[in-house]
Amino acid sequence: MAALHKVLENELNNTDKGSGIFVQQQAIAILDSGVGGLTVAKEVMRQLPREKIIYFGDTARSPYGPRSPQEVRLFTEQIVDYLIQYDPKMIVIACNTATAAALEYIKSKVNIPVIGVIHPGARAAISATKTNKVGVIGTIGTINSEAYTSALKELNPAIEIFSEACPTLAPLVEQGKYETEEALEVVQESLMNIKHCPIDCLILGCTHYPFLRDQIKQVMGKTVKLISSADETAREISTVLHQKGRLARGNEIPVHQFFCSGDPGMFKKIAFQWLGEQIELTPIVWQVSNPI
Amino acid sequence: MAALHKVLENELNNTDKGSGIFVQQQAIAILDSGVGGLTVAKEVMRQLPREKIIYFGDTARSPYGPRSPQEVRLFTEQIVDYLIQYDPKMIVIACNTATAAALEYIKSKVNIPVIGVIHPGARAAISATKTNKVGVIGTIGTINSEAYTSALKELNPAIEIFSEACPTLAPLVEQGKYETEEALEVVQESLMNIKHCPIDCLILGCTHYPFLRDQIKQVMGKTVKLISSADETAREISTVLHQKGRLARGNEIPVHQFFCSGDPGMFKKIAFQWLGEQIELTPIVWQVSNPI
Repeated sequence: MAALHKVLENELNNTDKGSGIFVQQQAIAILDSGVGGLTVAKEVMRQLPREKIIYFGDTARSPYGPRSPQEVRLFTEQIVDYLIQYDPKMIVIACNTATAAALEYIKSKVNIPVIGVIHPGARAAISATKTNKVGVIGTIGTINSEAYTSALKELNPAIEIFSEACPTLAPLVEQGKYETEEALEVVQESLMNIKHCPIDCLILGCTHYPFLRDQIKQVMGKTVKLISSADETAREISTVLHQKGRLARGNEIPVHQFFCSGDPGMFKKIAFQWLGEQIELTPIVWQVSNPI
Repeated sequence: MAALHKVLENELNNTDKGSGIFVQQQAIAILDSGVGGLTVAKEVMRQLPREKIIYFGDTARSPYGPRSPQEVRLFTEQIVDYLIQYDPKMIVIACNTATAAALEYIKSKVNIPVIGVIHPGARAAISATKTNKVGVIGTIGTINSEAYTSALKELNPAIEIFSEACPTLAPLVEQGKYETEEALEVVQESLMNIKHCPIDCLILGCTHYPFLRDQIKQVMGKTVKLISSADETAREISTVLHQKGRLARGNEIPVHQFFCSGDPGMFKKIAFQWLGEQIELTPIVWQVSNPI
């Protein structure tokens, strides 16, 4: 694994500022190829404001979409090996490509709950659809894996699935271009086929896509319900931690930690824009000095 | 416990009709004070059509709402003792009153996953609210227990909760009167206070209330999103079974079994109306000869 060097740290991170007593709240570890998993992190902060998050965005090696499943599995394992040092209570693979390639493998490697983003999105679509005709958009890796098809059919074999790889969308978000005019054009082009399919809901099968939600909504129209795998995953994190009796208690305000393997500038900029005030919780940015 | 006598049985129940091979699919056991849990069963059938259900409606002792927590706990334990003979893979306490009174107790008694309907409803409300102001309606038992307040505050202490007991609604449903003019009048009267509260979503904190969804929607108006604890529970059943690797596989069509402790006539009538074609799956009705 790459040597990872801390470039910034909040010394108060594990200290209860009021009492001075050392507090060690076990975190939810969230990982992604880059900034996409911030859509999951934001929803966890909103739905579970007591929970501490440690986040790793592998921006130095993003995008994962065009990489082989073997490579994505290796990268995911490296990040999990890194995050596990922080003794998290749960691992969230907040990247659809990595979920498709590595979820079952990572589950077999660690002794804490591991959840991906594909099944939560699939379950929400099953719940939302009235016609049993569901669309899925994602990276090439996610769509080629047919992981959504498997997840949907496993639950309900009668579901009809229309899927489309949109390889240009995640890189657009990583470049911070999700609010540009170019974004709408790229979304229009990416959805050219799927928008003519007879679906009543569309799974945003990449955690980067909620950054482009407005544009996707504009292209797909009002009759197609958008399912964010990110939002749905936050809710399933809540369900699983509740079942395990591991939801955070107490009233300390969690201090989240953020790591990224590439240029911290763009990551910090996007995190600020996306998380808004939440970023005042003092994110910690890490840097890979020796990308693999 | 009362002696329970089978009055009707489908001999093919555990037989794969195609091959003649004996098939024993472990069922999801769903229990309620009466017909309310059918709202959960219907959603399980829709979202998880491969899953077999065994259902117990304690119609002879319904309603549970005005009973003491101790009595409700006893009744719930008796039903669980009965259902456990069928070797289910999960117990669903599809009654908010029984969930409030007995969930933790039942969890401590059995070795299979047990889920109630309160946390799924709370989680869905946390996800849906934009204003952090949530309404809850339920039986006297549910509202007095403050189980929703605890569940909501446990997740997010900033949530403001407005709750109202509606003791006349569940009995109205048990009497099959949910499509009458009287139903709208009773709903209007029951929601007289809560409809003036500044909420943006309302938890239907009794599994009987989805039978009255149209009337509740009419009274509350379009700006208040209704959260059905029944629908949300079906989705959490899916999440928990998936996490445990216990979702049904294979393609046999499940044959559900229904039991009720009271008059089977009204139960069958309501089940037919509510489940529609699903009832053609040959429900089995049981009768308590000696109500406790």
